[in-house]
Amino acid sequence: MRVGEYLFNRLKALGVRHIFGIPGDFALPLYQALERTSIRPIVVTHEPAAGFAADAYARLKGLGVTVVTFGAGALNMVNSIAQAYAERSPVLVVSGAPEIHDRSLDALVHHKVRTFESQLAVYREITCAAAALNDPRMAMEEIDRVLEAVLRWKRPGYLEIPRDVVFARGARSHRVASTPHRPDPDALREVMAEVAARLNQSRRPVIYAGVEIERFGLIEKLVALAEKFNLPVVTSMDGKAVFPETHRNFVGIYMGKVGSAEAREVVENSDCVLMLGAFMTDVSTGLFTAQVDRATLMSASSEEVSVSHHRYPGVTLVDLVEHLLASRSVKRHALRLPRRAAPSAGSRSADLTTRGIVEELNAFLTPGRFTVVADVGDCMYACVDLRTDTFLGPGYYNSMGFAVPAAIAAELAWPKRRAIALVGDGGFQMTGMELGTAKAHGLRPIVILFNNGGFATMQAIAGRKDYFTVAPWDYVRIAESLGGRGAQVRSREGFRAALKEALDSRVFFLIEAILSPADISPTWTRIADEVRSRLRMPAS
Amino acid sequence: MRVGEYLFNRLKALGVRHIFGIPGDFALPLYQALERTSIRPIVVTHEPAAGFAADAYARLKGLGVTVVTFGAGALNMVNSIAQAYAERSPVLVVSGAPEIHDRSLDALVHHKVRTFESQLAVYREITCAAAALNDPRMAMEEIDRVLEAVLRWKRPGYLEIPRDVVFARGARSHRVASTPHRPDPDALREVMAEVAARLNQSRRPVIYAGVEIERFGLIEKLVALAEKFNLPVVTSMDGKAVFPETHRNFVGIYMGKVGSAEAREVVENSDCVLMLGAFMTDVSTGLFTAQVDRATLMSASSEEVSVSHHRYPGVTLVDLVEHLLASRSVKRHALRLPRRAAPSAGSRSADLTTRGIVEELNAFLTPGRFTVVADVGDCMYACVDLRTDTFLGPGYYNSMGFAVPAAIAAELAWPKRRAIALVGDGGFQMTGMELGTAKAHGLRPIVILFNNGGFATMQAIAGRKDYFTVAPWDYVRIAESLGGRGAQVRSREGFRAALKEALDSRVFFLIEAILSPADISPTWTRIADEVRSRLRMPAS
Repeated sequence: MRVGEYLFNRLKALGVRHIFGIPGDFALPLYQALERTSIRPIVVTHEPAAGFAADAYARLKGLGVTVVTFGAGALNMVNSIAQAYAERSPVLVVSGAPEIHDRSLDALVHHKVRTFESQLAVYREITCAAAALNDPRMAMEEIDRVLEAVLRWKRPGYLEIPRDVVFARGARSHRVASTPHRPDPDALREVMAEVAARLNQSRRPVIYAGVEIERFGLIEKLVALAEKFNLPVVTSMDGKAVFPETHRNFVGIYMGKVGSAEAREVVENSDCVLMLGAFMTDVSTGLFTAQVDRATLMSASSEEVSVSHHRYPGVTLVDLVEHLLASRSVKRHALRLPRRAAPSAGSRSADLTTRGIVEELNAFLTPGRFTVVADVGDCMYACVDLRTDTFLGPGYYNSMGFAVPAAIAAELAWPKRRAIALVGDGGFQMTGMELGTAKAHGLRPIVILFNNGGFATMQAIAGRKDYFTVAPWDYVRIAESLGGRGAQVRSREGFRAALKEALDSRVFFLIEAILSPADISPTWTRIADEVRSRLRMPAS
Repeated sequence: MRVGEYLFNRLKALGVRHIFGIPGDFALPLYQALERTSIRPIVVTHEPAAGFAADAYARLKGLGVTVVTFGAGALNMVNSIAQAYAERSPVLVVSGAPEIHDRSLDALVHHKVRTFESQLAVYREITCAAAALNDPRMAMEEIDRVLEAVLRWKRPGYLEIPRDVVFARGARSHRVASTPHRPDPDALREVMAEVAARLNQSRRPVIYAGVEIERFGLIEKLVALAEKFNLPVVTSMDGKAVFPETHRNFVGIYMGKVGSAEAREVVENSDCVLMLGAFMTDVSTGLFTAQVDRATLMSASSEEVSVSHHRYPGVTLVDLVEHLLASRSVKRHALRLPRRAAPSAGSRSADLTTRGIVEELNAFLTPGRFTVVADVGDCMYACVDLRTDTFLGPGYYNSMGFAVPAAIAAELAWPKRRAIALVGDGGFQMTGMELGTAKAHGLRPIVILFNNGGFATMQAIAGRKDYFTVAPWDYVRIAESLGGRGAQVRSREGFRAALKEALDSRVFFLIEAILSPADISPTWTRIADEVRSRLRMPAS
């Protein structure tokens, strides 16, 4: 079997139906090999979008793939893949490369930076496994090794395939290798006893769920767990919607002082916080304003379980969740939920505000019908107050430009759901033109563009400056120029009507929501206050 | 003096008047420090464009600078800076970074990939000097060291400045350090004697000039040298226009079998090729079809001079050019130029073709009034036949998306010249929306968009495929939506009229030239033939 054929067969067996990329010249044989499979190449306009799309696809399907050219292709995706690394998303980067045959004299070949190894060195920094398949005899084993690491750690992997290796024959007798994870049974018994005892003794236990719940396919098990023990659940921002936000046990998004007040009350008054696949980042802790006593904490991740100050390496989140579900020694609690604050009167105004948009969406989002994708900026932080059953957004690494490419991938990965992308004007200017790709493939995401004319989140920190201005584009006309439709709205009523129109549209639909430059979500207002007090930047 | 203040003072003294970037949160103090200088921040829509713009600015002014945020900013520019490295362009990347103060517990901070050092490790692969200014006491020395390397080697440098270091005080008694280059006088004497003897014995000498002529500010000296000894001059593609193409000694662009036939005749029949700052890459050698006998070759670069098979390390291009100019021991030759082929009849057709556009531009380009910028694709290879006094284009590394951001930088760097950007539809879809930035700053580049509906260069190699299709945008309408003007043309006459209209326009002007998908420049036709025969890709 040929090397390229082996790779794409394996990807197909793992559920991959689409790859994202651009067919530059060093990637031509890879695209030619793809033609012989049923995997469809989705050619985007710019490589950063390929990385974002593959990341979103990975979050929904368990594996996302990009196929790009050497240098100009792969190196143009470093930020997107770095984000996938930071946010634990299983993306495989497949890069074409110059022929092994042409490398003899360390020749200067286009798309090469310093040496033929420069790109591999860069990718080693942002992946959990990386290989250059320079020897066809070893290629299949290397493919297995990288894929296994990607699937196990839910981090990106990297395969570089020289142009003359794609159609070369691999090792004849190759079989897929895999070493399944098994925890030490004694360690597991010890963990389970300790966790059960703590849960049983607790008077106010709470589950704090994070991004790994979704990455390891544990959403349904988490729901079962919460219902079995009858525990309240909060999530982190990067883990938004890993627990259905319309479930009665759901409290809110915990971010220390800056997130949901109810979530804060439940977490910070708890005597037993069970953290499942969540991480203490600057964002998730509300710039380290979180007050969680380590003594009350039990935490499980893909690498280990920890209880207060001691660790059980090698016992994983999956082990813990599955054994807790099967356990008969943990008691059922009485569900104690905080009283939810009544919505403030201001949000009922007829003017369009970020907060008003979220309220309208809460009424609009029928469960099971939409995939919500958020870009970075206030449109993401406003989602602290959004209730949704699915949510994609770079809630930790926070790179702008994610939403539109991710919405395209979301409609391909889950074709029964319409994608709704929330994006600021700054983020849209980075990758929003990818809507042309949506049109080319008959996809029809609904894009809600929060147009406040500038980097409002930065302005809330550092005051008004010329350099926070975002150039005024005619967004609706641009959407039409790409073959889609659009509407500009300035009132809540207009927004509601546009949502309805978008729902009926047979092409993608862009709603340009005109907001005041001073309109900031409650969450970002609190974040900006924190940042300002920490930065102590001299007044300009 | 504060660290940020010292950096920007030094940049200003080196001629920097504009920086390119996006003010993300880790870069806020840097932008605040910039406010106290007369350096203007040019905020672009997407970081890849900031890298391209700084690269173009560097090519024209001797130093270009980007100021970006950590992670999402700097890592989104890796490809652009890799290109600047490969093409020897002196770009300084200044990246903000998390506070040193917040790093104590290896906290998870947004925009961070693996460790706080990941980004520095990536940048070490694509720069000639890199430093993280984590200690304010050492910061000024590190700034000097990185700047000196950038200016000496004409390669990118990297400075990472934590948010709490920008306004920290540096070492009090700091003076700018510099160690000027001096060649070994005996080695220099030996080189000069050998070069002079070879030139004097030669019957058909030729100068083959490359990109370093422009990077080291030697364009005028090269003209003087060619005139003094009366030698014919060819250039490489990446060194296009380092010798004025309207000069009588200029022959053409040498690229082995695929470039100018006249240049090939002169170089391959020469008994003495004096290579000045040029490099044998796959592009410059026409996919290694160049036939230059090493025995006839004398080559000078920023690192050394070589003659046939021996080398003089430490004697540089600048040393050689300056001493040759001062030398009295080299004789004046009789200029022997090949007969120029008459233009073929086909190019006189009324239909618009790539070749016809180049012919129209040859009539239009008044010397001294325009900066021509080319993107990658057939629009660049067509320029083998363009005669221009200035040319910017990634002729070696070949990353798409360069032209529009570079045209913006070109008008800022050389405000007396109008920028003309040649770009394909694929390249425009990557970074063309940066025209919104042009509008915001009152710049008015003329963009010539070669619209053949797909990756025509790839199609010429691998045949028609769905994945080579570029989505059909309404480009003229998009230009208008960004505040500019445009016209779509389908004939030579229409193109000529649009150029005239563009010249008079007070805002940027986009000419969408509709070309047949099968229309390919003579140069690319030859390249595609070569690639196809080398790849031996199986028929699909």
